Parts: sequence; C-alpha cells; structure tokens
Amino acid sequence: MQHRAVITRQALLETAAGLFDELGYAGTSISQICERADCTSGAIYFHFRGKAALAQAVVEGHFAAWPALIAEYATSDGPILDQVVALSYAVARAFREDPVVRGGARLWSEHRAIPLPLPAPFVGWISALTKLLTSAAAAGELATGTDPKAAARVVVAAFHGVHIVSDALTHRDDLDERLGEFWALALRALRAPTQ
Amino acid sequence: MQHRAVITRQALLETAAGLFDELGYAGTSISQICERADCTSGAIYFHFRGKAALAQAVVEGHFAAWPALIAEYATSDGPILDQVVALSYAVARAFREDPVVRGGARLWSEHRAIPLPLPAPFVGWISALTKLLTSAAAAGELATGTDPKAAARVVVAAFHGVHIVSDALTHRDDLDERLGEFWALALRALRAPTQ
Repeated sequence: MQHRAVITRQALLETAAGLFDELGYAGTSISQICERADCTSGAIYFHFRGKAALAQAVVEGHFAAWPALIAEYATSDGPILDQVVALSYAVARAFREDPVVRGGARLWSEHRAIPLPLPAPFVGWISALTKLLTSAAAAGELATGTDPKAAARVVVAAFHGVHIVSDALTHRDDLDERLGEFWALALRALRAPTQ
Repeated sequence: MQHRAVITRQALLETAAGLFDELGYAGTSISQICERADCTSGAIYFHFRGKAALAQAVVEGHFAAWPALIAEYATSDGPILDQVVALSYAVARAFREDPVVRGGARLWSEHRAIPLPLPAPFVGWISALTKLLTSAAAAGELATGTDPKAAARVVVAAFHGVHIVSDALTHRDDLDERLGEFWALALRALRAPTQ
C-alpha cells in the first residue's frame, strides 16, 4: 500500500473504532463513519469489504496493540512481578485512551452479532503472562507452590473482571484505584515472602 | 395475578430468557418467542409491554435469584470463608443451568442495546460479600490488614472475570476447574494463617 493509503486506512479504522465504542456494532452505520471521517463510502469500501470487515479489523487492531506493550515492559530491569504490575497499568491506560483498544473491546463483547471470525481473546495474554511468571518463579520471586500457568489464568481473568466492573459502575474512572486493590491482594498470594 | 397467569408469565419469561441467551437481544423477536412458547403474541403483550420490557423482566429475574441463594449458604455453620467458596460454586451452577440467570447475564452484557433501565450489576454482590467478609474478619478468619469491602470488590470482579474467560474459551465447561484455581490463590491472600 502507498503511504497515503496506509494513513487513510488507519484514520478510517480509528474513526470507526470510536463509533463502535460509543454506539456498538448494531448501532453504527457506514454512513455515520463516512460523515465523521469526512470521506465517501467509496473510500471505506476501497479499504474494507463492509461494516463486518471493518469491525473485524478494529478487533484485530486491538489484539495487535499488546505484543509491543508487553515487550516494552518485560525488558526493563528489576523484579519481574513489578514489571507485570506496571504492564497492567499501561494496559488500563490503553483502555482509557486508545480508540482502537476501546472499540475492539466493545466489539469483542458483541462478537456474537458480528458475522466474521474474530481473534480468540485472552489466549495471548495468558501465554505472555505464563512466560513472565515462569521467569519470576525461576528468579525466586513467586511463593512456593505457585503454578505460573494457573496463576496467569487467574490474573488475566481477574484483571478483565476488574475492568468490566469499573466500566459498569464508574465508566472506568476508578480503574487505577481498583487495580491497586486487586494487586494488593494478588501480590500477597503470589509473592515469595521476603527473608 | 391469578395463579394461572403467574405460571404463564413465568413460562414466557423462561422461554424468552432461553432465546435471549442463545440469540441476544437484537437477534430475538417476539414471534420467535411465541413460536417456542406455543402462544399468541397477544399472550405476551398481556404480560409484558414488548420486547424491551420482557428483556428488562429477564434481567430483573436474574438479579432476584441471588438473595435466596446467599441466605441459603450464609446461614450454615462452619467457617465463613468456606460458605463464601461454596456459594460461588452454587452461583456457577446457576449460570450453567438456570435459563433466566443465563439470559439475564447475556442481556446485561448487551445493556446498551436495550432501551429501558436495567438494575445496576455487581453492587448487590459487593454489598452481600462485604457483610460476609466483615463477619469472617470478626471471627478471626481473615489475614491481618484485609479490608472486607476492598476484598469483596476484588473477589466479585475476579469471579466475574473467571466466568467471562471460561465462557469465551470453553463455553463454561472448565468453569469449576478455573474457580478452583481462583480460590486456591484468593484464599492464600485472604485467610488468616492457621496457628
């Protein structure tokens, strides 16, 4: 793709993601996307086969956001559990600020309404976190008897639940505070006692 | 309401809940509910003002299921934390087996598509669990420094997340196993060390 086409495609994706986030899949139309992006429907159909393909691209964009973020936090020095905690706050920030992450999350929650296959959720996070917690165990950071994969599954699920509840009750205003509560308890369970 | 009318209303509610669970709010029509319940649309409109009111009644039925279940588990003898764990498995069973609980949960996740107010989720559970954990603290069951309300918020959110992930990855087939993993970690954080 030419440079300009890449930029146009990304701008359309972000505009569509914003509308999907606000109005959901069923509530968003191609003509609304055109109006907000100030383009013709031809421009949209040049890049995407239609609304379902656009939704699919937003969800794929959501999932594509994570590997770079994980790499950024997982290479710093210091205790691995601290990296995991810092990464979780970065993810929370992306959920507040990144339109593609937000739109992708809402679309995924409505996946049964979207007639195209979407990437499987959670699996990538569970696998990334299993790796991090396995390194933490090797570094002696985990409490005895902690299975890194089981712990990764619990943390991913709990983290997702904290998001959902915060979104339902305060539109994510209290997300950082609730994440703090979560980590206070989770680290008590996960962290090896200091000598 | 006459006894027969109450039974008809409940049967319609359960049929509608089953269809909402399978097909979602947008995907379910009054005529499908009539067909499956083997009744006329007049019978539905006699009990409910329309599809949105029916969905609202299913979500209200979902929330109404919990107080009796909580009372059943919270009065038995023995350690309060064990009652909380047993209650969580009973809730998981209701999510697998009770059509109104299942339909209500799906409808709530699609609440932005339903043009009527729905009960606020999570609040009742957080309050019920705060009470139970406050009693557990008074009985010396909680680890020092555990705030019952903060712990209740974390447990409710994490429990919800475990449901969502299990539903997304295995249609809740592995829910009990994942709940077991969750409680193994959560009790390590919550439970006072045995002397």
